[in-house]
Amino acid sequence: MNGGGPKKLVDLLEDPLPGVGTYEDFNTIDWVREKSKDRDRHREITNKSRQSTVALLRSLSDAFSGWLLMLLVGLMAGALAGGIDIAAHWLTDLKGGVCLIGFWFNHEHCCWTSNETTFQERDRCPQWQSWAELIVGNSEGAFAYIVNYLMYIFWALLFAFLAVILVRAFAPYACGSGIPEIKTILSGFIIRGYLGKWTLITKTITLVLAVSSGLSLGKEGPLVHVACCCANILCHLFTKYRKNEAKRREVLSAAAAVGVSVAFGAPIGGVLFSLEEVSYYFPLKTLWRSFFAALVAAFTLRSINPFGNSRLVLFYVEFHAPWHLIELAPFILLGIFGGLWGALFIRANIAWCRRRKTTRLGHYPVIEVLVVAALTALIAYPNSYTRMSGSELISELFNDCSLLDSSQLCGYNLADRPAGEGLYTALWQLALALIFKMLITVITFGMKVPSGLFIPSMAVGAIAGRLLGVGMEQLAYYNHDWLIFRGWCSPGADCITPGLYAMVGAAACLGGVTRMTVSLVVIMFELTGGLEYIVPLMAATMTSKWVADAFGREGIYEAHIRLNGYPFLEAKEEFEHSSLAVDVMRPRRGDPALAVLTQDSMTVEEVETVVDSTHYSGFPVVVSQESQRLVGFVLRRDLLISIDNARKRQDGVVSTSQVVFTEHAPTQPPEAPPPLRLRGIMDLSPFTVTDHTPMDITVDIFRKLGLRQYLVLRRGHTGRRSAAKRGPPSFGAFVILFYRPVVPNLGVPTPTR
Amino acid sequence: MNGGGPKKLVDLLEDPLPGVGTYEDFNTIDWVREKSKDRDRHREITNKSRQSTVALLRSLSDAFSGWLLMLLVGLMAGALAGGIDIAAHWLTDLKGGVCLIGFWFNHEHCCWTSNETTFQERDRCPQWQSWAELIVGNSEGAFAYIVNYLMYIFWALLFAFLAVILVRAFAPYACGSGIPEIKTILSGFIIRGYLGKWTLITKTITLVLAVSSGLSLGKEGPLVHVACCCANILCHLFTKYRKNEAKRREVLSAAAAVGVSVAFGAPIGGVLFSLEEVSYYFPLKTLWRSFFAALVAAFTLRSINPFGNSRLVLFYVEFHAPWHLIELAPFILLGIFGGLWGALFIRANIAWCRRRKTTRLGHYPVIEVLVVAALTALIAYPNSYTRMSGSELISELFNDCSLLDSSQLCGYNLADRPAGEGLYTALWQLALALIFKMLITVITFGMKVPSGLFIPSMAVGAIAGRLLGVGMEQLAYYNHDWLIFRGWCSPGADCITPGLYAMVGAAACLGGVTRMTVSLVVIMFELTGGLEYIVPLMAATMTSKWVADAFGREGIYEAHIRLNGYPFLEAKEEFEHSSLAVDVMRPRRGDPALAVLTQDSMTVEEVETVVDSTHYSGFPVVVSQESQRLVGFVLRRDLLISIDNARKRQDGVVSTSQVVFTEHAPTQPPEAPPPLRLRGIMDLSPFTVTDHTPMDITVDIFRKLGLRQYLVLRRGHTGRRSAAKRGPPSFGAFVILFYRPVVPNLGVPTPTR
Repeated sequence: MNGGGPKKLVDLLEDPLPGVGTYEDFNTIDWVREKSKDRDRHREITNKSRQSTVALLRSLSDAFSGWLLMLLVGLMAGALAGGIDIAAHWLTDLKGGVCLIGFWFNHEHCCWTSNETTFQERDRCPQWQSWAELIVGNSEGAFAYIVNYLMYIFWALLFAFLAVILVRAFAPYACGSGIPEIKTILSGFIIRGYLGKWTLITKTITLVLAVSSGLSLGKEGPLVHVACCCANILCHLFTKYRKNEAKRREVLSAAAAVGVSVAFGAPIGGVLFSLEEVSYYFPLKTLWRSFFAALVAAFTLRSINPFGNSRLVLFYVEFHAPWHLIELAPFILLGIFGGLWGALFIRANIAWCRRRKTTRLGHYPVIEVLVVAALTALIAYPNSYTRMSGSELISELFNDCSLLDSSQLCGYNLADRPAGEGLYTALWQLALALIFKMLITVITFGMKVPSGLFIPSMAVGAIAGRLLGVGMEQLAYYNHDWLIFRGWCSPGADCITPGLYAMVGAAACLGGVTRMTVSLVVIMFELTGGLEYIVPLMAATMTSKWVADAFGREGIYEAHIRLNGYPFLEAKEEFEHSSLAVDVMRPRRGDPALAVLTQDSMTVEEVETVVDSTHYSGFPVVVSQESQRLVGFVLRRDLLISIDNARKRQDGVVSTSQVVFTEHAPTQPPEAPPPLRLRGIMDLSPFTVTDHTPMDITVDIFRKLGLRQYLVLRRGHTGRRSAAKRGPPSFGAFVILFYRPVVPNLGVPTPTR
Repeated sequence: MNGGGPKKLVDLLEDPLPGVGTYEDFNTIDWVREKSKDRDRHREITNKSRQSTVALLRSLSDAFSGWLLMLLVGLMAGALAGGIDIAAHWLTDLKGGVCLIGFWFNHEHCCWTSNETTFQERDRCPQWQSWAELIVGNSEGAFAYIVNYLMYIFWALLFAFLAVILVRAFAPYACGSGIPEIKTILSGFIIRGYLGKWTLITKTITLVLAVSSGLSLGKEGPLVHVACCCANILCHLFTKYRKNEAKRREVLSAAAAVGVSVAFGAPIGGVLFSLEEVSYYFPLKTLWRSFFAALVAAFTLRSINPFGNSRLVLFYVEFHAPWHLIELAPFILLGIFGGLWGALFIRANIAWCRRRKTTRLGHYPVIEVLVVAALTALIAYPNSYTRMSGSELISELFNDCSLLDSSQLCGYNLADRPAGEGLYTALWQLALALIFKMLITVITFGMKVPSGLFIPSMAVGAIAGRLLGVGMEQLAYYNHDWLIFRGWCSPGADCITPGLYAMVGAAACLGGVTRMTVSLVVIMFELTGGLEYIVPLMAATMTSKWVADAFGREGIYEAHIRLNGYPFLEAKEEFEHSSLAVDVMRPRRGDPALAVLTQDSMTVEEVETVVDSTHYSGFPVVVSQESQRLVGFVLRRDLLISIDNARKRQDGVVSTSQVVFTEHAPTQPPEAPPPLRLRGIMDLSPFTVTDHTPMDITVDIFRKLGLRQYLVLRRGHTGRRSAAKRGPPSFGAFVILFYRPVVPNLGVPTPTR
């Protein structure tokens, strides 16, 4: 500060250059640096606020900007989710027919306006005409069926085509579920544009189209992406969040909670999802704010009322009968099924995606989508359970049969529930639907359209669960004198709830695929509202996770992260072998010596040579080449920007100028060019470990502090490893570092592999 | 390992001595070391499991021991909570009268067995006799009233006396709520016996007595302590948890969730409470296990069915009317009240507790309890709202008035709710009860009996809320043409629910006192089960927290931690000033030089002199006194144990033996005594920061990694601070460190104050 060199010194400390301290695309942020930047900012505002009223007001508005932002995110995401629901509902119905009094009405809406509808036949009214009625004037017979069939396929293809074309044209990042990428971004990686406005617009529109096209995908995962886009865009309104990557990620964590909250109408489950599944850094403050945003979003969605029933979700259920302890056996069976299906699905899907990536299949995404959409529509139409949308199917499967229910699934002969003809037909159709859904989902997830995995997974589980449930029910009906049924399941009593089995199955399959635990159970709990059903859900989810983990510990999102080569340090992973930092650090034996900068004995040109001849993201600064004691750490990007800037704007800085990282420039001959002072961009407190630190502790530090790099210091004459003897002069600290990989396709997602 | 010194060398590395690696009482554990120990253990078991089937089975049983432990904790804590509920209910009723058909029946139970009871007058049956009836054969009139009054006081005093005497005699740690201490223990501190079997037994019994004595305290906080004691005791069954302090704390975190789960019948809320309020290290695995344990406990409690209504809690509520947006204004008002009350309560209570600690008041805990109990009973009896137990009061205040309700609070004149005579009386009594509860709770919390704060705080808030609620209701009734009521509150409509106000008030007050947020809202949500009431609860809790924080950021538990001088590093605290590690590290300028050990040039006697002349918990090991480069760190306790042991058991180790921390002992003259090799107890990877590291980052590292100490290294010729020039020879790493304080009464709870 009190620079006293022989010439005017330019100090970078006080006025940081634009660009210094920012990150390049596909780079990892330094959490510690970002958080400490934010603390400094906060401290400054607090200090100023004591000086004037204006500053005090500014400090208050700064403190409340986080809440305001959360409110806005909740409102925006809730409104978008409502819009998506309404639009998807309308387009889905459009595949079957059109409303004569206004084509923009969906089926249900259309018939509301009609007076001729009775309660029993809500779905039928003259205003709503199927395509066959409209085109050939006839709704019965084989010909009409074929016309409807063809129109269904036509619309499905049209929607799918529009979806994939829009994604390709405007925002390639809009495809997929987005959760793997969001996990990576939240862990500190930067993917510019992934959460931008074009992605948001494109994803919103194409999500509606993709869902309506009847493909085996859901809107729940992409809703998380949409919510995160909203949050990222709204962050630009507030300096605090615009300029700080760590603070912005707090908001994104909350947005992930908002996404699940609007997808399932489960604010608490959403927050736990964010905490358990996607977030990396989740301080308690974020917990509370996430909860706030999730609630705002849920209530925004409810006031839009997209389903017309004041409910937050399509498949709200109310069960009346309690479950019996013996039923835990089938529930656990469902858990095993869910786990097996989850493990199998992940393997098959990853294998298929890898094939897409490596073979020519990947070059024709539009054709792929069209073929899959055509196949789906072709097979799905004849079976009423695959023709309806995924969430409608789940809703129907979860439903408990009341006496008035006209659904085929409730086709019992009598009130005391022997299965009737209708139910047997339904079971056959369900079994076929199960096989179809299982196969088609594997090739659907990962295509270049927005596609969520929650609904298809839940659908598979719900079908399996319902089948098992009806089986148990009939077993109990015909064998109520068996020991296991005696005492709690008398004939005629309504003792087994197939809908509950469907729900348990759905949870098990979703759990097997995503490996969610607490959040899944809480989401399901929020759907039913009954604490007693938590135990079956928990038993199934737990079994499912254990079974699936036995085949591989990665959930589908982690598998996709690895497939795409994103750098992601999995918090749950444990180390098998006990290695020390010295075993994994670079340079290894035989590598060229570590590229370092010295604190006051290199010229600009020499520094540039070091930087140009390597690809490292940063360089340790040491006292001198002989005495390699660590002084600090400087980032490549900051270094380049500063040198460029100095050359352009500072008088006298030339290639022979000395680069000085110390506070006082060393005395130089009077004719020398002015030195370039770079202490301001140097990190004076780089993180270090000793070379004897076990790797698991090192990785723990990486995870918990969110570091970008770590220097390994070697000191003392331990003599344990010959490497130590080959190192630089044996006194003095010394050095190396390992980075998180910087390029996403490096295929080395953690620094230790 | 391949020690090749001139004489037989004893290597401590392979066979750790008993005691090495353990902690003394009132010490802080090293999380990193504990976790790394557990990882080594796990790795060893995994490796062995590949060799034989027995080892595989052992590895599996090891993996599932965590779940088994959770199951046991849930069962035990649930059963204990059920027992406490039943016993407290019985003893509380005993203050009023006795059951003739069996003194062990409580009032309700007694009248169940009677056939003469009608539904309307469930509470009255000839079998249950008040003390006046029993003693003077008359239940009416002033004399009977006085007899009952005196008997009430007698029982209250008896229970209180037994409670305080038992606590003093058997387990002094059983007093208070226990949550501050559990927070401290979970953060890594060791208080032996705090979670032991005597504490458990004493706390369980005295909790029943204290609650029954009518003192203004609740059983919810102590239940957390009871659950933690169960967990700690059960940990002894499993080596994995018995031997590892970090693993045991994971179980204790889950037990805290179990405690809240059984206290409120809110498993999700319990888990969030543990996460938000008490836990320090809460990995995701713990989240899932806590949830499991909390559910097991809740269902155990329900199958015990202590309240006889299949509900988990005494105050289950169901509201029917929705709330209106305008009502947010009174809800926020309640939030402000709750915040003010919380801040005031904390100040008053801490002032009172400090007075107890510092004046002679503290010498007479038994008399204090008796005086407060007498005072409470004396004042409480005449007012029916203070006479009933805290949870009964809250239950009544939360209740929505139905038409059949005979409670005084529902004393409306007509169905359309103008207040009647009875209601006005009730309001007066409530107002008096409010003042009484506010005052008496301040002096009750902190006495030497088990005492929870949840119920008294909630009672204060519920009374205030109910008063405001009835006020709003009457306002709306008489002024339904006002602009704010028009449109949603027509005359005769039941538009305002005073019970909801009570609930919001309770949440606000509890929030103000404890500063809980998410967990509080979720607990309340689990009580009502309706998502729509979350918004009022959230608004009030948020306001309450903001208001209370404006007067001081500490909740009651943090305040008590500070009062008792426990070492606790608050995760939420932020630093005001920007200091560097160099500013706070010891030794400071003018202090004597840092006490260090050298790696191979000190004798046993010299080491003992260094250890004896200081009180530090550990010592850095450096290369030599001249070149103070850091080699490792050794703990005082480990050092003393090893030297003692070597002297007793190893031939030739005498005071002049050399202490060697290097791998190979230096060559010595042949007549020298054998060296004492201590490399095995040295930490080869002590954590270090540079002296330029900002304090907030340093504190962050402490919090996130759970460290016990950190070494501050000073290197390079930075010359920034003159202190650097006064340091040891300026090349080479250098040193030291700040500890977490070790003695609880040090009054310096964080290393930075």
